[in-house]
Amino acid sequence: MKRYEQLAEEISTQIRQGILRQGDQLPSVRRASGSHGVSPSTVFSAYYLLESQGHIEARPRSGYYVAPNKKERRAEPPLPRPSSDLLEVDVSKLIFEVLGHVRQRETAPLGSAFPSPDLFPLERLSRSMGRAMRRLDPWQTVEDLAPGSEGLRRQLSLRYLAVGAGVDAGEIIVTNGAMEALNLALEVLTKPGDLIAVESPTFYGALQALERLGLRAVEVATHPRTGVDIASLQEVLDKHPVKACWFMTNFQNPLGCLMPEARKQDMVKLLAERGIPLIEDGVYDELYFGVRKPWPAKAYDKEGMVLHCSSFSKCLAPGYRIGWVAAGRYASDLSRRKLMTSLGAPVPSQEGLLDFLQHGGYDLHLRRLRDTLAQAQARALRLVAKHFPSGTKVTKPEGGYFLWLEMPGALDALALHRLALSHNISLAPGHLFSADHRHANCIRLNYGHPGGRTLDDAIKTVGQLACLLITDLVT
Amino acid sequence: MKRYEQLAEEISTQIRQGILRQGDQLPSVRRASGSHGVSPSTVFSAYYLLESQGHIEARPRSGYYVAPNKKERRAEPPLPRPSSDLLEVDVSKLIFEVLGHVRQRETAPLGSAFPSPDLFPLERLSRSMGRAMRRLDPWQTVEDLAPGSEGLRRQLSLRYLAVGAGVDAGEIIVTNGAMEALNLALEVLTKPGDLIAVESPTFYGALQALERLGLRAVEVATHPRTGVDIASLQEVLDKHPVKACWFMTNFQNPLGCLMPEARKQDMVKLLAERGIPLIEDGVYDELYFGVRKPWPAKAYDKEGMVLHCSSFSKCLAPGYRIGWVAAGRYASDLSRRKLMTSLGAPVPSQEGLLDFLQHGGYDLHLRRLRDTLAQAQARALRLVAKHFPSGTKVTKPEGGYFLWLEMPGALDALALHRLALSHNISLAPGHLFSADHRHANCIRLNYGHPGGRTLDDAIKTVGQLACLLITDLVT
Repeated sequence: MKRYEQLAEEISTQIRQGILRQGDQLPSVRRASGSHGVSPSTVFSAYYLLESQGHIEARPRSGYYVAPNKKERRAEPPLPRPSSDLLEVDVSKLIFEVLGHVRQRETAPLGSAFPSPDLFPLERLSRSMGRAMRRLDPWQTVEDLAPGSEGLRRQLSLRYLAVGAGVDAGEIIVTNGAMEALNLALEVLTKPGDLIAVESPTFYGALQALERLGLRAVEVATHPRTGVDIASLQEVLDKHPVKACWFMTNFQNPLGCLMPEARKQDMVKLLAERGIPLIEDGVYDELYFGVRKPWPAKAYDKEGMVLHCSSFSKCLAPGYRIGWVAAGRYASDLSRRKLMTSLGAPVPSQEGLLDFLQHGGYDLHLRRLRDTLAQAQARALRLVAKHFPSGTKVTKPEGGYFLWLEMPGALDALALHRLALSHNISLAPGHLFSADHRHANCIRLNYGHPGGRTLDDAIKTVGQLACLLITDLVT
Repeated sequence: MKRYEQLAEEISTQIRQGILRQGDQLPSVRRASGSHGVSPSTVFSAYYLLESQGHIEARPRSGYYVAPNKKERRAEPPLPRPSSDLLEVDVSKLIFEVLGHVRQRETAPLGSAFPSPDLFPLERLSRSMGRAMRRLDPWQTVEDLAPGSEGLRRQLSLRYLAVGAGVDAGEIIVTNGAMEALNLALEVLTKPGDLIAVESPTFYGALQALERLGLRAVEVATHPRTGVDIASLQEVLDKHPVKACWFMTNFQNPLGCLMPEARKQDMVKLLAERGIPLIEDGVYDELYFGVRKPWPAKAYDKEGMVLHCSSFSKCLAPGYRIGWVAAGRYASDLSRRKLMTSLGAPVPSQEGLLDFLQHGGYDLHLRRLRDTLAQAQARALRLVAKHFPSGTKVTKPEGGYFLWLEMPGALDALALHRLALSHNISLAPGHLFSADHRHANCIRLNYGHPGGRTLDDAIKTVGQLACLLITDLVT
């Protein structure tokens, strides 16, 4: 990271933490240059970046000020109340109905689960793959089957080390993307009828996996900023025979919440005491906007009971279908299950990614991607504030590419979704994110397709449509 | 195919069909040249090829004769009696124990399920993939998710057309290899506890899939040369509530049997009358030694009730993990199930294979591969005849790369497997191929790793070890 980016990070963290508050004046360029020991041009660049991200604003002949929140954003949604029922899961039909539209190119993908494919170094990846395949020993086509390429698993193990997790290459199984990783973890841990604790709201892919395996769900209260609520988790565990948990600790889909490190640690401890394994979905781990990469709960796991699932699909190589599980004590079971289910992950993708991790500049790519997404979020938040009905609440995640909007109570997100579709815009209505179709006045909004007017116009249009619907309801 | 290869095919077919019998003299080169309307050198090349394959032999100053079976090969094993029980499936432990050794490079892979990776055009494939990825539209990384690349599915549809099957691209779902295809088919058709009809002996991967999903198996008698016995199938269907069948109509694993076309047709008709879907595993379809490619049962399917599963892993691109299902009336369910399980198949592999199918010379590669395997089979049969205990029976499949050996009754194939392992040779003992570990005196022998002495020596060694074991048993 360049020095000016570091400085901008430090300042935006201070804003986020409330050390600098809205309306506070920032030190002059000369003063900041002296106190941080950097050149004036570095300070200029940092301020310019912060301004472009919407964190600060310049006032003519006066200097830079922390941007007032009122203009920029809405209030945060409250802690959603989870369902107190044990839920049979039967969500797929609605999910497919809604998401069928997301992949049409002419549709503005506010409802998409993916960031724009234009954000990824697909050309350099393809060169890496070409290089790797030219020197491929044909026997690797057999040897790279489950648990996967030895070299790739070693690289993954090194990356875990950097976030405090001692994960041996031997406990990593390479999979066809995170979706397979998560499904395999669930298969290894459960039998039909078992009860799984999930977040509220939760990723619909988790609900589909539960449905596929005939499992039941119990919801745990999940704070829109800080994630799984430990008291609620404890209560659920006291009451019900939970077989496993499926949580997303960093930039949860759809809330974008980030569990504080201490809370992750408490959660891992609590689950270990009860002997309950945790399936941790970490696909957004790399997409943090802060200074330090958040750790996975896996980093606090001493018992080998956290199965950390992740992939390269959201941060580097969409379509390559390479994910993995760090499966702890379940590694051997999971590797066999993988062999039985699909033998192995694709060798060209595995070897190509290995080459890229070694020579392609992965970390540089990630820094740029994070900057792009942070700026896109600031822009999206301003548009939401400007165009959505008054009373709309919205998250401000510290990473990822989703906003979660809670609109005034009477507004039906499915109706808004249908209306938006007629304007060639897709949405992910809140109904998708629980087994009993709650969160009916919420939407998940993908801001990960920046560049051009399309995204801006789409957000504006949806906001206007929401206002129309509200007016209809009132009159 | 070159003219001399065609001629050799014609003659070997006549031998196989019993039109030419062992000891029959072949027409002189001059006469054959006249009657077939080809040059003498074409006849020479054909006879030379047939000799190298062990079909005919030259007798000095006399001419060419059909090789006597006695020297070259053993008798065919009889029709195995299927288990009459409904079987809970619990085979995985043994399978993993035995097959754990197969992937070690220093082990001679007679027990392997894969042909040698050296038989495939991996360099040309990698060039195809490089070309495809350089011109990739980034949005394909989203659009190639389930059901898969439009272009690739259209190519597959064309290849189906060539074997009499009108399979629309719209009913094809691209998967992570055939193993995932078969598993998805089973998931879409069944619920835990359901009964599935399988061959006897059957591919252990099918048994593992049944075990994974909590299904039960019922066996259908399967002839070592002609496959599923229709009378036995009818009897099983009369007696039991079979939910689906899982059969391999062409070059079944492990028997190598090939169902005659009329019998496939009868079977499809019978199953359609009963409303029972067929999961057809077609991974060896391309590996025929005869003149004409055998058709899949799918070609006779008028009701959309045959789910034909196949892949490129055994005939073109090991490690690329590209398979597919032509799923008939179940296509929409299967596509959704694929999305829920692993989203999609790898884009680099899909697009690389598409380019290769269009420009890479797939059919030329296949002709060479078939020749190589046919010659390797002839060689393996001679070695088996020479070195295995008397009384050993062996199949002579018309395609694929497996022999199935039935050794004298008292010989335990697991004991032979352990002994062979101590000589760095793997075997697939018959125990793996049924839910109740029958076929205990049988082994499946992979001859698909030709070249060099290793394979020859391994077959010889295993034969000698079998003789030793027999002697031990007798004395």
